[in-house]
Amino acid sequence: MIVKTLAESGELRYADLKRRTPGVSAKMLTQTLRGLEEDQLVTRRVEPSIPPAVYYALTPLGLTLDEPLAALREWAETHMPEIDARRSRAGRLRNP
Amino acid sequence: MIVKTLAESGELRYADLKRRTPGVSAKMLTQTLRGLEEDQLVTRRVEPSIPPAVYYALTPLGLTLDEPLAALREWAETHMPEIDARRSRAGRLRNP
Repeated sequence: MIVKTLAESGELRYADLKRRTPGVSAKMLTQTLRGLEEDQLVTRRVEPSIPPAVYYALTPLGLTLDEPLAALREWAETHMPEIDARRSRAGRLRNP
Repeated sequence: MIVKTLAESGELRYADLKRRTPGVSAKMLTQTLRGLEEDQLVTRRVEPSIPPAVYYALTPLGLTLDEPLAALREWAETHMPEIDARRSRAGRLRNP
């Protein structure tokens, strides 16, 4: 989701990235960005304004991940509704 | 990996599937197969021989997952060596 958002938007401020990643906690987003930055999939740029503004963007390597992730996301969006429906029917059977 | 193996081989006995999935424990393989079966990505067929033989195969839905997973696997096989190399250099810097 972060990779998709950065692939679509280019560079984004932390707050904008958080707003476009519904349901993610600040802690999880920060940890994920740090991991992506360590693996050089994402760059972090600090604008020395007051207060400082932090920007994230995909590296060329990070951008190459967008396409295979998009294929998997598309599969999930197509098929997860039927799988989820089966899971909740199974859940009702197990916990009547 | 299980999806790839079953996509390539068609139906496989449990023991053959385990042999072709290096490093997986019996517990992890069994749990994974049970999850895939519950989501109807995989079928389980018991041949009533002595001892009974258990066969697993992808359903048509499971087969549709092979292509997007293959794209992600290919990305990982292409890029993980350089990412792993960076990680171990970073590890050496952190733990000199």
